[in-house]
Amino acid sequence: MYLAKVKVTLKPAVNDPQGITIGRALGRLGFDTVDSVRAGKYFELKINEPERAVAEKKVREMCEKLLANPVIERFSFDLEPA
Amino acid sequence: MYLAKVKVTLKPAVNDPQGITIGRALGRLGFDTVDSVRAGKYFELKINEPERAVAEKKVREMCEKLLANPVIERFSFDLEPA
Repeated sequence: MYLAKVKVTLKPAVNDPQGITIGRALGRLGFDTVDSVRAGKYFELKINEPERAVAEKKVREMCEKLLANPVIERFSFDLEPA
Repeated sequence: MYLAKVKVTLKPAVNDPQGITIGRALGRLGFDTVDSVRAGKYFELKINEPERAVAEKKVREMCEKLLANPVIERFSFDLEPA
């Protein structure tokens, strides 16, 4: 059993209106040292798979097929025994 | 300058319909070893602050005030020099 911690972020060239809005809101709250904000998604998946290599391959496929949009997003993940 | 990588997740007791839906969709795609999915948010913030301790305190405040809802969510973050 493995726990996959998946981060999905927009590619640097892609405009991020959510991040921009959050950055402005932080500025209005007095956080004037915030330079930029990028918003993304985070998933924790429990994978019932005894082999680490298989679990890693499966998680990569899940990211490519469903969790991330490869046209505008990139993903990264850590696997830890659970 | 620091880069804060912030993860916001629902507390374990809070129902997560988005995660459940994603888990079902993964099952329909053939990923039958997925045990559970929890969905969260991820932010990358660039903080224009020379002192690590100050940057850390600021990011914690931002999480408590805006990025996370402390009633139903928890947050964690890493800081790295940028």
